Amino acid sequence: MNCVLLSIGDELVLGQTVDTNSAWLSGRLMERGVMPLYHLTVPDDRPAIAAAIREAARAAKLVIVTGGLGPTDDDLTRQGLADAMGVELVTDELALRQVREWFTRRQRPMVGRNAVQALAPRGSTILENPTGTAPGLCATLAGSTVLSFPGVPRELFAMFELHVEPLLQSIEAAGARPRTILTHKINTFGEGESRVAELLGELMARDRNPVVGTTVSRGVVSVRIRSDFPSRPLAQQHLDDTAREIRRRLGPLVYGDDDTTLAHVVIDLLRQRRKTLALAESCTGGLIGTELTEIPGASDALLGGWIVYSNQLKNEQLGVSLDVLQQHGAVSEPVALALAEGARLRARSDFALAVTGIAGPGGGTPDKPVGTVWIALADATHPTLAQRFIMPGDRHTIRDRSAKTALNMLRLRLSGER
Amino acid sequence: MNCVLLSIGDELVLGQTVDTNSAWLSGRLMERGVMPLYHLTVPDDRPAIAAAIREAARAAKLVIVTGGLGPTDDDLTRQGLADAMGVELVTDELALRQVREWFTRRQRPMVGRNAVQALAPRGSTILENPTGTAPGLCATLAGSTVLSFPGVPRELFAMFELHVEPLLQSIEAAGARPRTILTHKINTFGEGESRVAELLGELMARDRNPVVGTTVSRGVVSVRIRSDFPSRPLAQQHLDDTAREIRRRLGPLVYGDDDTTLAHVVIDLLRQRRKTLALAESCTGGLIGTELTEIPGASDALLGGWIVYSNQLKNEQLGVSLDVLQQHGAVSEPVALALAEGARLRARSDFALAVTGIAGPGGGTPDKPVGTVWIALADATHPTLAQRFIMPGDRHTIRDRSAKTALNMLRLRLSGER
Repeated sequence: MNCVLLSIGDELVLGQTVDTNSAWLSGRLMERGVMPLYHLTVPDDRPAIAAAIREAARAAKLVIVTGGLGPTDDDLTRQGLADAMGVELVTDELALRQVREWFTRRQRPMVGRNAVQALAPRGSTILENPTGTAPGLCATLAGSTVLSFPGVPRELFAMFELHVEPLLQSIEAAGARPRTILTHKINTFGEGESRVAELLGELMARDRNPVVGTTVSRGVVSVRIRSDFPSRPLAQQHLDDTAREIRRRLGPLVYGDDDTTLAHVVIDLLRQRRKTLALAESCTGGLIGTELTEIPGASDALLGGWIVYSNQLKNEQLGVSLDVLQQHGAVSEPVALALAEGARLRARSDFALAVTGIAGPGGGTPDKPVGTVWIALADATHPTLAQRFIMPGDRHTIRDRSAKTALNMLRLRLSGER
Repeated sequence: MNCVLLSIGDELVLGQTVDTNSAWLSGRLMERGVMPLYHLTVPDDRPAIAAAIREAARAAKLVIVTGGLGPTDDDLTRQGLADAMGVELVTDELALRQVREWFTRRQRPMVGRNAVQALAPRGSTILENPTGTAPGLCATLAGSTVLSFPGVPRELFAMFELHVEPLLQSIEAAGARPRTILTHKINTFGEGESRVAELLGELMARDRNPVVGTTVSRGVVSVRIRSDFPSRPLAQQHLDDTAREIRRRLGPLVYGDDDTTLAHVVIDLLRQRRKTLALAESCTGGLIGTELTEIPGASDALLGGWIVYSNQLKNEQLGVSLDVLQQHGAVSEPVALALAEGARLRARSDFALAVTGIAGPGGGTPDKPVGTVWIALADATHPTLAQRFIMPGDRHTIRDRSAKTALNMLRLRLSGER
């Protein structure tokens, strides 16, 4: 089955908010064999919403609309859907009760305007929202199913899990030839897209099935596989064969699959080996800690760390000598080494990572341009390793690449590659 | 003038990558009075790309296409644009030279397939890419201008700044009635969208100009203003009047404008007052540090901090007594107070923020459910303040809200509100 994703909102079209819902929905739909044809974003404009819904219902069996269901005057999805269907809006008593209950449960007064959230196009069905006030809608239009959900990601995610699985089963049951699409993503770090493409060679031919493509995002080159066959076992077998061949060709560049981050892999490796880690972050300012502690269970492996932004803290808290700071500067090999060793000693951890660099935009010199970053890795059994990098891009990118490069250094050490 | 934004890529349609380029482009175009009509995302499919370009050129005077210009077989924007124009692809000697020079400058070997990046539809113009290998394209189709840029954000941003301003001036010069659209965003933290809408009242009427709307993103409720008048002075004056009235109604809920983050505001306030800050982060694991150090010049105000994930580090590095940890647990008022005071003392800073909480998914108890967070603020002149919150959502959301709530607590203290 195919589908179209519509997102509604001035804030999206005008670029004040990034649409992350469509990507999330696409991922969840693909897992269920539903293939997105396109994503379209239109403003809070009643005729534009109605036209987009009509056109989408012509193109696909399933249309998912997000956004525009809030309580305020610029939320117009209900009206747009009613126009597309050629019907009027009526108050749904069940929905009104659900909106009221939401406020009662939270012991909050119900604001008058929340009552508009109980309006629904005549002939549509209300979809309960377990985590918010705006119920969703389910309607039929030109033989297609149109689902409308709130744009708040947390509410959308909960409603999708609750409603879409049973709906998909009932739509599927109504026919369509069997077909399973499985996708998989293999993530690499350390080389550019062209180099990865060269290593993949003929695997990337457009007419191959499974089809193989590459994308770059924030320094990570991902290899995407899409396997499209009449049955799940067949799709899975071809996907697995292709994935195995990709891994063989890319070797230690590959760090993980799908949504796996370098932080995931590092935490997993540390936990498997019952090892602990401490951090000393200067230019990354806590970013490595943030990425690692985003992973549930990080506390088994990460003891903690120091954000040593000032030289005073580098000296007093991690024992970097003022002479060394003075003589070599904070962004230097001896300071990186001393930070990593100081953190490991004080936290009594197995490993320590330290980062010190010039993230810009100011602070660069001919000798040490913006982007100069020293990363050090200390452990019990190897001499402490320090490497210099010239990171590309702006402050945000330099910090992001520095954090990833540090995590990758530890990953390679933990997996015996370095 | 109006425009359409097309983004090309399987990885976008299949949800493996979030399209952040369209939002960025919309923001930059709006600043220049160019109004996006819609955003459309289509897969790496030659007919789909060609159809989307043709349709967009019918709808708008300017079409901006991002993505699909890479060196690999799944990059099909050049072909799609040529099909839409009904012409063939030819090698552009200037582009070939630029691709070669890119590799020479970086002392890297040019991979053979990079040569496809010098292909261009006959009749189109090459746009130089100062930061990458893929040149852009400029073409005319059905009286509209079609610009094609790489999808890598860093390359896109650099090329936009380089090429779009002069192009817009020449398109504008060719006619169109004068019209200026100005937008502005006012960000609030601490109340929900319905409450903000109640405070705004009739300002949110749909037929008002400037039009006022609200959106929520990660706990921040933003009030958007869009002012559409025949001249810039008129648009500016109405925008300013509306913004002033919004600020009056929302009071201290308002923390900043447009892309300003709470971290921005806190760094600015600290720098203005020549005050310094230290952090003690447990459940946020470095997130507050990351957000603050994202701001250039943060080092004037932020001395650094401690990521005290383990109880051992809370005790040894910040002097939280083992008795208190044992008796009250790490997520408790006395531990939050001790962390903030310990960090301020050791960093010799004017202020210190401490966060300790249960981010989940595990670790909750009936007494202290997942989402329980204690935040403390220490300074030289007030008794140390600690507050308990029950944050909503998953681990990521709990950490994000905790960091924002801590920053907001310091913002209110610095601006004399608390």
